[in-house]
Amino acid sequence: MTSLRHNVDPQAAYLDAARACILDVGWRRTTLTEVARRAGVSRMTIYRAWPDMPAVLGDLMTREWGEVVARAVSAADDAAGPGASAAERIVAEVVATTRALRDDELFLRIVELDPELLLPYLLTRRGRSQEAIAELTAGRLREGQRDGSVRDGDPVTIARALLLAAHGFVLSAHTMVDDHVGEDDLDAELEHLVRGLVAR
Amino acid sequence: MTSLRHNVDPQAAYLDAARACILDVGWRRTTLTEVARRAGVSRMTIYRAWPDMPAVLGDLMTREWGEVVARAVSAADDAAGPGASAAERIVAEVVATTRALRDDELFLRIVELDPELLLPYLLTRRGRSQEAIAELTAGRLREGQRDGSVRDGDPVTIARALLLAAHGFVLSAHTMVDDHVGEDDLDAELEHLVRGLVAR
Repeated sequence: MTSLRHNVDPQAAYLDAARACILDVGWRRTTLTEVARRAGVSRMTIYRAWPDMPAVLGDLMTREWGEVVARAVSAADDAAGPGASAAERIVAEVVATTRALRDDELFLRIVELDPELLLPYLLTRRGRSQEAIAELTAGRLREGQRDGSVRDGDPVTIARALLLAAHGFVLSAHTMVDDHVGEDDLDAELEHLVRGLVAR
Repeated sequence: MTSLRHNVDPQAAYLDAARACILDVGWRRTTLTEVARRAGVSRMTIYRAWPDMPAVLGDLMTREWGEVVARAVSAADDAAGPGASAAERIVAEVVATTRALRDDELFLRIVELDPELLLPYLLTRRGRSQEAIAELTAGRLREGQRDGSVRDGDPVTIARALLLAAHGFVLSAHTMVDDHVGEDDLDAELEHLVRGLVAR
């Protein structure tokens, strides 16, 4: 997939270079110069696309989480099967997406080396990806209210509550794991939680 | 309450001084020297109780969140009334505790000035207060399984899942609030979520 992208879209190739650099040395030590070197282009070429590294990171995170979510949702829908109600699809999608974000290598590297990058999205504002996930979820909830599988209530509010509940399962699940409680046990509780929140 | 504490327990008075200092200038600018000055004792007196400021902060946070949780739980139990099932008490307690932590002035000041202090408790390990809350919740769930109001399942696992779900409602609820969705709307969803997760 990465090599295909290289051929069709130069901006995607620069984001690939930035991603590789962050995986190697972390965000703080990644410079536009190093991204340009890895992409095999001049610094000016990178500057024409992004004014600074935070702008690169914003686009990279939006692309990364967007791809992770799309893959997880699609896999969850396949697993749920064509006969599943919207509510059952939402349950499967939320659990699969939470697990996929938690295991994403870029996410893990940011948590390991540059966790302060996450703080604005926890404390200050919804990021583009959080907004996209909330809107996707609200749309699914509306479908479920139409097919009768999702309870009444404002879909936007329920979607944001689901996002708030899922934050901890993405960021902190490993802090709750020990000899007594496994990650799968927590994901089973997440499944229960989502079903309890959305199902009629 | 603060002045009472001053009279009975010198360590509590030093924590009061540290708390006042953090509220004034933030954690990074709070020194043991300044804490001693505010408490009206020598630096050596403070050093005898704590080796460094992180140790002071650890004890201060444990005391603060412990008091906030105890007050919220007690108020929620009073509001639920003596006839409430354990499950209904848990629902009221989790919602009240989440709201009280979110509005605590020390918590708000840390979020505002020194949010990176929160990262270890999200990404690395359960803090003492998180552990205490999880154990308190597991105990309540056991009561509820005995009185038949709480569903089957391992109480420790359910309690940790509740904690993970509540994290977002403490830390990030305000990022999900706008003209369309209010904090009370999100708390109503949290109530629904907790009931769905624990009730039989």
